[in-house]
Amino acid sequence: MKRLIEICGKERVTAPELIPQEYLVDSVTGRQGEAYALVFPLSTEEVVELVVYAQLADLSIIPRGAGTGLTGATLPVSSELLIDFSLMNQILGFDKETLTLKVQPGVTLADIQAYVSQEGYFYPPDPGSKDATIGGTVATNAGGMRAVKYGVTRDYVRALEVVLLSGEVLPVGSITEKNSSGYDLKDLFIGSEGTLGIITEIQLKVIVPPVTSQSVLIAFDQLADVSKTVLAILSSHVEPTALELFEKEGMAYSEKDLGLKLPLDSGAAYLLLTVDGQDPKEIIARYQTAIRLAETHGGIDSLVLTAETAVQVWQLRGNIVAGIEAVSQQEPLDVVVPLNRMTETIDFMKALGQRYHLPTVCFGHAGDGNIHGCIMRQHLSAAEWEKRLSQLLSELYHFISDQQGLPSAEHGIGLLKKEYFLKEANPVYVKYLRQVKQVFDPDNRLNPTKLF
Amino acid sequence: MKRLIEICGKERVTAPELIPQEYLVDSVTGRQGEAYALVFPLSTEEVVELVVYAQLADLSIIPRGAGTGLTGATLPVSSELLIDFSLMNQILGFDKETLTLKVQPGVTLADIQAYVSQEGYFYPPDPGSKDATIGGTVATNAGGMRAVKYGVTRDYVRALEVVLLSGEVLPVGSITEKNSSGYDLKDLFIGSEGTLGIITEIQLKVIVPPVTSQSVLIAFDQLADVSKTVLAILSSHVEPTALELFEKEGMAYSEKDLGLKLPLDSGAAYLLLTVDGQDPKEIIARYQTAIRLAETHGGIDSLVLTAETAVQVWQLRGNIVAGIEAVSQQEPLDVVVPLNRMTETIDFMKALGQRYHLPTVCFGHAGDGNIHGCIMRQHLSAAEWEKRLSQLLSELYHFISDQQGLPSAEHGIGLLKKEYFLKEANPVYVKYLRQVKQVFDPDNRLNPTKLF
Repeated sequence: MKRLIEICGKERVTAPELIPQEYLVDSVTGRQGEAYALVFPLSTEEVVELVVYAQLADLSIIPRGAGTGLTGATLPVSSELLIDFSLMNQILGFDKETLTLKVQPGVTLADIQAYVSQEGYFYPPDPGSKDATIGGTVATNAGGMRAVKYGVTRDYVRALEVVLLSGEVLPVGSITEKNSSGYDLKDLFIGSEGTLGIITEIQLKVIVPPVTSQSVLIAFDQLADVSKTVLAILSSHVEPTALELFEKEGMAYSEKDLGLKLPLDSGAAYLLLTVDGQDPKEIIARYQTAIRLAETHGGIDSLVLTAETAVQVWQLRGNIVAGIEAVSQQEPLDVVVPLNRMTETIDFMKALGQRYHLPTVCFGHAGDGNIHGCIMRQHLSAAEWEKRLSQLLSELYHFISDQQGLPSAEHGIGLLKKEYFLKEANPVYVKYLRQVKQVFDPDNRLNPTKLF
Repeated sequence: MKRLIEICGKERVTAPELIPQEYLVDSVTGRQGEAYALVFPLSTEEVVELVVYAQLADLSIIPRGAGTGLTGATLPVSSELLIDFSLMNQILGFDKETLTLKVQPGVTLADIQAYVSQEGYFYPPDPGSKDATIGGTVATNAGGMRAVKYGVTRDYVRALEVVLLSGEVLPVGSITEKNSSGYDLKDLFIGSEGTLGIITEIQLKVIVPPVTSQSVLIAFDQLADVSKTVLAILSSHVEPTALELFEKEGMAYSEKDLGLKLPLDSGAAYLLLTVDGQDPKEIIARYQTAIRLAETHGGIDSLVLTAETAVQVWQLRGNIVAGIEAVSQQEPLDVVVPLNRMTETIDFMKALGQRYHLPTVCFGHAGDGNIHGCIMRQHLSAAEWEKRLSQLLSELYHFISDQQGLPSAEHGIGLLKKEYFLKEANPVYVKYLRQVKQVFDPDNRLNPTKLF
């Protein structure tokens, strides 16, 4: 503790007994952890000193942002030193000529989006939690609603500065548009969940924003028809920005929670589509194509949303998880399957929920084959919930693997999906993950017990 | 040799004395190498057997495609076993629902583009040599003319099957659209120039093609004005597919070689722009914006190209290197700098050429900051050429590094740029490149002496 105070100053070091519960309790499972201390560095130099001290004092480290993750990846489980990046929250520079934004890892997504937008530009990745830090979204390779057109966080990271456990500062990537000069270590750190190195600076790519956008809500009687429509749209010239799928049943939780109603009453399943672009006429042609494709694949009704209704519908879509959590604890799923396996996957998830008497609500980023699901605990005892859930998840992740799918599209593996990830992943792949880890963190000090 | 024949059969093994010169002489430098043998495997299983044998026989290996690379990366320099993938040239499957094309590494780019196009889809990466194998373009992360809008090879690789030197078969990546399930090893192999593993199967992402496109040629008196126009276009809604920059001087070689003339006579520097999309009217608005931006940044003339003229102009652009090679041996450059450092970089390159009396022609993918250059040997003796060239390149790559640029955008480092890459790269970065290499190829058998 003395050395930590020397490095960061007294006011930026929190002793274990004073660490707030939000740092020590996992938001999903309620599991309780314990930490060695909590520190708030201000600079790369301080992070290097913390890392060097951790080596000397034989401590493990967990770097963390806003704690909005959904996999327990930042939960301390073995008296780790928690490094909170929320004070490293400076926007360091914006170069409009190279379209590059340089930030510290603790800047929130909301702050980045607001800053860039005010300057007339656009940072597309849009994960659910705008309170997330950019460092956290890089560590999980977060996705969000606009990925089908614009890609995920990985696609917008030009370069990183990473502090390694050796105390070395490793620059990876480049602010150039192309790079075939040495191995791509940058992409190794993106999505590595704080297990390979500590990200202390990020250079992001921004783009020119679309001029206008339009959302359309389409109703279907059957979920399978939504999937067929999605495939047809992805093989057309609609070029959707967002393609969200949800069911009436799941939406009801959100409607109740917000006291709002979806503006289409017919149907059992819905597709919420956005198109954006420069030319309003061209956009009309594109969403009309989408509506036509829906009609030929079982769509029963559609509504071109006004600006005001669009805000409400997107609010309803964004609130599904909160609506469910208002009535029950839940296990958040983030599976991803090939685009043509969505119907089977959702059907399987729902049948599995019925079999285990664990109601399962499915929705997702249909344009990416990324299905979120909430498995609801309801009134079950902790023991019964854990028993049933773990059996259900074993079956589920095995099925996902059989579909050539993966346990996580955008949340990461963390603590909660580790067991299932390791069970289903190719053993040669896992072997080399461990060996790569050895290169950068030979003593396993960085977020140990997570990912594998 | 006996074991090689057991693995591949007699007709697919070439003894060293019978190996054609094209395998043993570097196309850029004319440097002569020597190989242990040349083999043509047909399957992953055969590649595994070859690798196991290489271990036993203490051989090094160079995997190679069509040999169209420009960095000496496939030149055998220490009696390596050459594995030629040209017979592993099958298209294994095309899934229109997931927009995934599965191929063997020896399929040529031309064959992939033709196949996909015939099916109504589009594989955007478009490096200069269409004879290149897809495996080669993955190994170098090749780019090409359309990268400014569509990205590079990396952006279209969903998954790889890689044979490691241990004989293990490692699957990396996924055919899902998103993936946050473990470290991104796929991107480590892309651009690794055959030094980490041997790619035996590739799954590519294809997209829906644009409906129509239009090219425009714009003339300028000064190169600096081209760069300013490029920056303005990239911050606008023009959304160019291609943004090629060249000078009258360099184009003259191509014109003479082809017996064609550029359809604009005024100006000293040119921007060749393509826009594509779905709606012809919207495309007109976009290229007109580009022309207006050029006019306000020093453009002196412009021509909207007819389909026929466009073919000729693109042919002229694509033939610059051949036009130069018709009169002199040349060193091909592939530097990349931040978008706003292009003018300074080209000015420096040309001044350097004058100082060393080595005429230097510059052109490039201006939308990516990727400047190709041809340094011409002319009548110089081999000794004098090598001496001047090596001094020039030392200065050049040091300058590029000062601009936060890199020695290679899309060709790779190989043998020819290794010295300069190692001199300018961050030493911590190079240290970890070597350690990552150790993980996958601890005995340094795979394309040794290349990259670092």
